[in-house]
Amino acid sequence: MLLCDIGNTFLHFYHKGRIWKEKPYALTKKKENLPIYYISVNERFERCLLASHPHCVNVNEHIELQTQYVGLGVDRKAACRAIDNGVIIDAGSAITADVMQEGVHIGGYIMPGLEAYRRMYSDISPVLNREIEPGVNLSILPQNTADAISFGVLKSVILMIKNTSRTKKLYFTGGDGKFFARFFENAIYDNTLVFKGMQKVLEKQI
Amino acid sequence: MLLCDIGNTFLHFYHKGRIWKEKPYALTKKKENLPIYYISVNERFERCLLASHPHCVNVNEHIELQTQYVGLGVDRKAACRAIDNGVIIDAGSAITADVMQEGVHIGGYIMPGLEAYRRMYSDISPVLNREIEPGVNLSILPQNTADAISFGVLKSVILMIKNTSRTKKLYFTGGDGKFFARFFENAIYDNTLVFKGMQKVLEKQI
Repeated sequence: MLLCDIGNTFLHFYHKGRIWKEKPYALTKKKENLPIYYISVNERFERCLLASHPHCVNVNEHIELQTQYVGLGVDRKAACRAIDNGVIIDAGSAITADVMQEGVHIGGYIMPGLEAYRRMYSDISPVLNREIEPGVNLSILPQNTADAISFGVLKSVILMIKNTSRTKKLYFTGGDGKFFARFFENAIYDNTLVFKGMQKVLEKQI
Repeated sequence: MLLCDIGNTFLHFYHKGRIWKEKPYALTKKKENLPIYYISVNERFERCLLASHPHCVNVNEHIELQTQYVGLGVDRKAACRAIDNGVIIDAGSAITADVMQEGVHIGGYIMPGLEAYRRMYSDISPVLNREIEPGVNLSILPQNTADAISFGVLKSVILMIKNTSRTKKLYFTGGDGKFFARFFENAIYDNTLVFKGMQKVLEKQI
């Protein structure tokens, strides 16, 4: 069984403990007899997968989560299913934060992803078209434009996560998850979180 | 004497205590004999002003500020000149924060403006194309997409400003300055801050 998580930038695959990502318009050929169980938040990229492989099963509807949240993305639901207690941060195209308590989803919020921040600054003014510097010093006030932007992005995301976490354990996933995890003591990075949640559900239901 | 602050969205004018903004390609005709002293961070919009009025004086170079910050925008410099002690937040196309202490600029940072955030979310995914809801409850975790976005934007900006301010007084200016000021006890909203700084400098130098 091959698992796939279709996001807004990449398709992420999981097979026998191995994880990798592919671009939607450059998908590799998979073994024909291997069924792909997938979740998707992007219809266009979903069609790319369906066109390239005969045995695909959309399991969006099977990913159930106890929550009052209306419209929670299926990838967030899957990651939350993997964790009973803690804060799940998925840092990809967007940065989502979701709080789980005793297996119940308490709520969550959405920040832009790092690449979205970078594009946003360059849209405001060409002067602000700078890379986000991961090593910027977050404990002293910036003294130039590049640092002022990196500080503005990274510190605001980190303060938000700190404010949500308090004593709760943090679980990071997604492309920039590893990077953000290093700012927190009570953090675990696990890039298979969505797939662990999918597996947990599928083992019960399929 | 007419003052003008050319930003990345609007041209802001100041005359005899009155303040107003105009779009760069729809500038009204001003009295021909009235000189316009202006600062600018946008060359294209600066040319719009120069094309529409004969007596314009660029005073960018006169706006000096004691600082180690390299590349500080002239509008930020002008606003800082108006305040000797405190944090100056200019919430416009971008949200800038600058700390002044005994007339010296200590440093500052740049976050995206509210409109930039809104555009950015819709770029990530059409599902995230929502207005930022100013009344969102910031003390409970969101339970739907619109709140999750508004919470992500507003709370991250507010936590950053709180973290910078601590016991310092906050001075808000810019199009969204009034909105953000209401989240803080130690805050003053003054949409003439840039012009006050310009006046202070010009009275001395011209």
